[in-house]
Amino acid sequence: MNQVAELANRLIEAPSVTPATGLVFDVMEAMLAPLGFAVHRFQRGSGEVGTDEEAVENLFAIRNGPAGSRHFAFAGHLDVVPPGEGWTSAPFAPEVRGELLYGRGAVDMKGAIAAMVAAAEHVPQDAGTVSFIITGDEEGHAKHGTRALIDFMRDNDIQPDLCLVGEPTSVHRLGDMMKIGRRGSTIIWLEVEGTEGHVAYPHLADNPIPRMVKILAELDALVLDEGTDWFQASNLEILDMEVGNPASNVIPHRARARVSIRFNDCHTGESLGEKVREIAERHGGTTKQVIYGEPFLTPPGEFSQIIAAAVKAETGLDPEPSTSGGTSDARFLRAVCPVIEFGLCNATMHKRDEAVALEDLDALSRIYTAIAKAALAAE
Amino acid sequence: MNQVAELANRLIEAPSVTPATGLVFDVMEAMLAPLGFAVHRFQRGSGEVGTDEEAVENLFAIRNGPAGSRHFAFAGHLDVVPPGEGWTSAPFAPEVRGELLYGRGAVDMKGAIAAMVAAAEHVPQDAGTVSFIITGDEEGHAKHGTRALIDFMRDNDIQPDLCLVGEPTSVHRLGDMMKIGRRGSTIIWLEVEGTEGHVAYPHLADNPIPRMVKILAELDALVLDEGTDWFQASNLEILDMEVGNPASNVIPHRARARVSIRFNDCHTGESLGEKVREIAERHGGTTKQVIYGEPFLTPPGEFSQIIAAAVKAETGLDPEPSTSGGTSDARFLRAVCPVIEFGLCNATMHKRDEAVALEDLDALSRIYTAIAKAALAAE
Ligand SMILES: [Zn+2]
Ligand SMILES: [Zn+2]
Repeated sequence: MNQVAELANRLIEAPSVTPATGLVFDVMEAMLAPLGFAVHRFQRGSGEVGTDEEAVENLFAIRNGPAGSRHFAFAGHLDVVPPGEGWTSAPFAPEVRGELLYGRGAVDMKGAIAAMVAAAEHVPQDAGTVSFIITGDEEGHAKHGTRALIDFMRDNDIQPDLCLVGEPTSVHRLGDMMKIGRRGSTIIWLEVEGTEGHVAYPHLADNPIPRMVKILAELDALVLDEGTDWFQASNLEILDMEVGNPASNVIPHRARARVSIRFNDCHTGESLGEKVREIAERHGGTTKQVIYGEPFLTPPGEFSQIIAAAVKAETGLDPEPSTSGGTSDARFLRAVCPVIEFGLCNATMHKRDEAVALEDLDALSRIYTAIAKAALAAE
Repeated sequence: MNQVAELANRLIEAPSVTPATGLVFDVMEAMLAPLGFAVHRFQRGSGEVGTDEEAVENLFAIRNGPAGSRHFAFAGHLDVVPPGEGWTSAPFAPEVRGELLYGRGAVDMKGAIAAMVAAAEHVPQDAGTVSFIITGDEEGHAKHGTRALIDFMRDNDIQPDLCLVGEPTSVHRLGDMMKIGRRGSTIIWLEVEGTEGHVAYPHLADNPIPRMVKILAELDALVLDEGTDWFQASNLEILDMEVGNPASNVIPHRARARVSIRFNDCHTGESLGEKVREIAERHGGTTKQVIYGEPFLTPPGEFSQIIAAAVKAETGLDPEPSTSGGTSDARFLRAVCPVIEFGLCNATMHKRDEAVALEDLDALSRIYTAIAKAALAAE
């Protein structure tokens, strides 16, 4: 095993299903402290297990460069999704078979965090300030995770210039894709109330279903946008419809539905909520909305060029600047400084027998080193 | 109490929630036998309680007139719907308060059957053949009820010329309405299959909901007909929609819906099933259908004139020949001979404190007597 694989091994050995606390952070602290990092750990949440108030741990580590130097941040998460059944080897007993290291979190994203730690070791302290923004709740409610770390930085007047998130963005080969943005995500609940009645006397009833059908037909026909230079078109999906009428002769009194919108930066969660509400209300319906994340975009420029150059030098590939896929904690970090995601191949993430190529770990560490150095050297 | 009320009292005292057997038929047989009727009773069904195979009793009684005489049939049911809670007096302990007789079945339709029995006593045997077609399962599955009685008549070569069903058709005053037809009734289940997927990758999924919405929008926009001289327009109601997708990030794989159609004689259950199936299949959906009843119509003519004349003579009212409301066993009896429904006021049917005016019982018996005599005397 190379040095990065050894570090990854130690992190994977510490089980850390979301929300993570304790052991895996002890391991992380033990890696960073010898490299000269001041490590701050804090827990947030004190509520019931299984709720969004369950306790979660966060870690912020910083190694200050010379006064006035630039500040580059590595960001990521130590929590992992539940391993599920059917693994060839135990998910929290990492094992090398062939050229691969197996274990839950190998690519998402303990392998990347190991590569960050190894990279930090190879960035001279006088090159500038380097920090780690590491949460134990990215895969879960994310309520007391990276958001709490951002509060911590604000309260301590810590302001990175650029931030790299180590999510597994590569698809077929390490280096083929980075994420310069992510779409926003919102869920909207729809409800139409009517008046119950007997099917033989429809004039005495008010069936809410036809009105809900009209709302859903309009929503389905919406063209939210045509996409942008960097984003695919926003997309609305009807997730569910529900009436729950067991009777064969009763016109029901209520119809419900739920839609999901993944949206680009032509919109905000609020603007979409308004648009859907207007359609629903026109047909006598009501809406409730939860916005899970606003879109973020770090338009191609200096930061993406730094990453592309580092990737190209190591792998020969030109990483595609993509905005596809689900949400990540970059949706929060965007408020702090420009943020881009780059990491390992995601083919096995969240799956059984999650595995990373040993040579990818080593290569990613060299890429991260080059990115950090270039980011700290930039104007 | 008048004689008809006494008879109704005896029938109500015998609890007979659907499906009815035994005691209430013993009471009925004891009333008919002394009047010269040959009484045939038989049970059908031997299955589990609560299923459509639960045992049900039927009664066919006949008093033959002279050879070659006409045959007039009274039809009805001795079963009642469950009494429910909140009665002022016990539902199966009939009680006269003021001018009303209270008890489950008072109007639907033990009161009418009592009036039929009293009427039969006043129709001379040499006027013609009179029969009773009485089931214990009209309010339930109706699988082994009147249909079995029709089989019995066919097997015994018994063929009434006209049949009066004693359902409570009057609305505000005894005699204001008769039913010369009923709409048909069908339920159609719709299903659209798609391909499950993640909301972030809709191109890899096939959401069945938009296709179901298109189907339901087309069905809701259908104008089945404009009504006829005797029927209101056929009506389709969407009863239910169901997807059952608890996830917020998963495009579901199946959508279901259920529609009810109450239809007039412009259609058959089958023709409507075809129409809905064609729409569903055009959007990749499938259907399943159950036809609960075809429409029936006994167009205004000799029989309705006989009834109208008898009603007018007793009450001074011209009964409206209506086809409104739900289904009744007339949907089966229509296959035997012309059938019309006429009976008590339906304001309290299926409700708590079901009650009939004592004078209505007496008047209905006189109307039934006049109808039977005129029906037997007709050409
Ligand atoms: Zn991740
Ligand atoms: Zn009835």
